Amino acid sequence: MDQKRVVEMASEVDSDLGDQMNFLLEIDQLKSIIRRSRIVDGSRLENSAEHSWHLAMATLVLSAEAGPDVDIARALEMLLVHDIVEIDAGDVFIYDEEANKLKHQKEQDAADRIFNLLPGPQGQRFRALWDEYEARDTPTARFARAIDRLQPLLLNGSSGGQGWKDNGVAHSQTIAANAPIREAAPRLWELASAILNEAADNGQLIDDRPKPD
Amino acid sequence: MDQKRVVEMASEVDSDLGDQMNFLLEIDQLKSIIRRSRIVDGSRLENSAEHSWHLAMATLVLSAEAGPDVDIARALEMLLVHDIVEIDAGDVFIYDEEANKLKHQKEQDAADRIFNLLPGPQGQRFRALWDEYEARDTPTARFARAIDRLQPLLLNGSSGGQGWKDNGVAHSQTIAANAPIREAAPRLWELASAILNEAADNGQLIDDRPKPD
Repeated sequence: MDQKRVVEMASEVDSDLGDQMNFLLEIDQLKSIIRRSRIVDGSRLENSAEHSWHLAMATLVLSAEAGPDVDIARALEMLLVHDIVEIDAGDVFIYDEEANKLKHQKEQDAADRIFNLLPGPQGQRFRALWDEYEARDTPTARFARAIDRLQPLLLNGSSGGQGWKDNGVAHSQTIAANAPIREAAPRLWELASAILNEAADNGQLIDDRPKPD
Repeated sequence: MDQKRVVEMASEVDSDLGDQMNFLLEIDQLKSIIRRSRIVDGSRLENSAEHSWHLAMATLVLSAEAGPDVDIARALEMLLVHDIVEIDAGDVFIYDEEANKLKHQKEQDAADRIFNLLPGPQGQRFRALWDEYEARDTPTARFARAIDRLQPLLLNGSSGGQGWKDNGVAHSQTIAANAPIREAAPRLWELASAILNEAADNGQLIDDRPKPD
């Protein structure tokens, strides 16, 4: 028995159920997409599926940090689906400028393929969540993005900054990349900037902060 | 910098935020709790954090299989938190009868410790979700349980049944363990029982089905 056979059996129960099982088994591959942050104990790199779970938990726990226009239940769903495109497009390191130029089209193609595995209206609903997240035009998407930025910073901070050191990341890069936190959740930015400053003090980030006169 | 220092910095912003960061960093350990099912490509065993993400996705995708009394948003939150107690209590294999006798108290102690890391009302809210899941007295908890039972069966079916073979699991055991699916989501049970029968036909499960006369 394999994935194809399970999907066949589901289709014998109901055609939509077959499509749904195909999608659920296909997205299992997110467990094999490896990110650049280490888990807190430092023992290995994080994968995108467990990262998505951690973001969902952070959304629930930190919901009081969101502004009044944020729909927390929607942010939660957004973060559960936001990385699924990486199954085809890969995880692009936030500080890899060249790879980020090519990322947009690859991810659009991935979204076209993967969300279309689902029955029509359901695929459209998930695609709309992903499009909203990518466009960052709504308070909900901006809060979700802030959570997605904060979590790797917490992991890097807690695991001795190895993820930053391995990739030669500079303080100025992290400030630019984490700007979404400042706008969407000011108190989380207060924490984030304290972590980034201490990481630069400790040499975990390259210290390119402007020198005081 | 380590977990303790990040929590200290968060506490300097706000005392509740410190407790929330401590919880979020503590539950990172769920990524290191290893289950008995293989991921779909068969390459390794699944961990409980990525499992929880997969269950959340299955809840969204299969919401139409739930009865009218099921609160899908609540089932989703329940499944995101339901395995967190394994950080202290470990993942107990569903077919290990001895270990399951000791499991209840260990998990209660774990819930006492871990959910109490959060600020009071938030910890109580998560604990109530977990207690409801464990008690299985509500349609929402019973649907969540059905999803938690179905997913490993899909993984085992899709990856050649190695998880069953490695652990010498019999067809009758899987029928008993997966009964929650039958009651909460009849069409998913139709699929589950087809998978279990084919697995017994193929020798992936020990075939102890009653013989026809």
